[in-house]
Amino acid sequence: MLTSKQNQQIKLLKKIQTKKGRQRFGAYLIEGPHLVAMAIQLSMPIQMIYSTPNAWDDSYASYDYEEISEEIAHYLSDTGHSQGVFATLPLNEAPLPNWQSLEEPLILLDAIQDPGNLGTIIRTADALGYRYVILGKGTVDLYNDKVLRSMQGSHFRLQIISADLTQLIPELQQSGYQIAATALDSQAVPLPELTFKQSKWGVMFGNEGNGIHSSLLNMADKTCYIPMSGDAESFNVAIAAAITMYQLGLS
Amino acid sequence: MLTSKQNQQIKLLKKIQTKKGRQRFGAYLIEGPHLVAMAIQLSMPIQMIYSTPNAWDDSYASYDYEEISEEIAHYLSDTGHSQGVFATLPLNEAPLPNWQSLEEPLILLDAIQDPGNLGTIIRTADALGYRYVILGKGTVDLYNDKVLRSMQGSHFRLQIISADLTQLIPELQQSGYQIAATALDSQAVPLPELTFKQSKWGVMFGNEGNGIHSSLLNMADKTCYIPMSGDAESFNVAIAAAITMYQLGLS
Repeated sequence: MLTSKQNQQIKLLKKIQTKKGRQRFGAYLIEGPHLVAMAIQLSMPIQMIYSTPNAWDDSYASYDYEEISEEIAHYLSDTGHSQGVFATLPLNEAPLPNWQSLEEPLILLDAIQDPGNLGTIIRTADALGYRYVILGKGTVDLYNDKVLRSMQGSHFRLQIISADLTQLIPELQQSGYQIAATALDSQAVPLPELTFKQSKWGVMFGNEGNGIHSSLLNMADKTCYIPMSGDAESFNVAIAAAITMYQLGLS
Repeated sequence: MLTSKQNQQIKLLKKIQTKKGRQRFGAYLIEGPHLVAMAIQLSMPIQMIYSTPNAWDDSYASYDYEEISEEIAHYLSDTGHSQGVFATLPLNEAPLPNWQSLEEPLILLDAIQDPGNLGTIIRTADALGYRYVILGKGTVDLYNDKVLRSMQGSHFRLQIISADLTQLIPELQQSGYQIAATALDSQAVPLPELTFKQSKWGVMFGNEGNGIHSSLLNMADKTCYIPMSGDAESFNVAIAAAITMYQLGLS
């Protein structure tokens, strides 16, 4: 049983709780029986499972595993309420699709900075049947612990791609994609009136404080807004994305 | 200028940052120039404004105010990033409407426990034009600092009522209201098929972990669900509420 914070493996697990450490070691950490069970069920490439005796589940025995003490579990837990089990997985970036042949809607995110918002958008995209999410520059790291908690495993199912949207959007458009953006410019149509004539479309959402960067907004083929009552100021970006993804999924 | 943590007013402000203190003193604290400006604009009954010299705005001069030091502002701030201005307002529960004559849709919340979820649901209800939100037992306190941050002032505009839903729902129904609930029972219809023949309707959302309590679910006139793709497990409750409020607002 691993009981020491000085153990090399425990030191490594602590390091991959930072973005820098994850990139250096090419791995990330998931926490809790729910996420670990989901990773097992979806045959994700689990590298190692770390479990306290109390949290042990027989399904873990098919993997490389280490027992850890309750104290170490508490030390590794980012919530302060350890559930006793952790697993490491490789940082596998989804391969770039062939945009020419792809006929799936895309969700494009420009600099979403709040981990809860990013995780919730990805979880909602998954639940609404979207399969592709593209993370533009300035977006919070996908493997941040709070993002992982909000996603609830949706990243295991979706194709999540990091890209420079200023380069990608023209490429998508050349491949037949039409890109919509949520914005309040003079051309914007109310969301229920936004339609695409084709199955190759994407919709872009922007930073919590600043919205979509103007250079990206200028590239959009269409803009839309969610009709609001007179007084309120705005929607949270995860809410705006959910309503938009729901509406576009209906039509 | 107030510079001491031992000052009676500062001690009081600290106390009303807890639910117990708010109930004892009948007041709550808002933080930041954005919320204070909104309270001023909407003529809310501000009791006192506390501002550092740096955060001072001339609009504050029409109110009772005290200058506070940067150190005290930091001490009072719940985020650790003080913006230098605070205000106190009375805890005014909205009066109970006459349900017989009311013809407005209602949002009913059963034991929403995450402050960010409650605040986001109220902000979204406001943006989508809903005017009445009813907080059932077990719901997190409306004046919790995280709820206030997520609401972004929407509670200034909406009628927010605390009630025991097990007593209120039958009363609403006797007053001509139909109540829908989000749930996956055998009677549930897909959300786009949920309609009401009348303008007197309400929709209920439940606790993050447990959903709507069965005793309340049994009282609902209708149940609906948001169609999901096969794999995903669920929506965050604030997302489910947003999609449902949006869809019901369309029809």
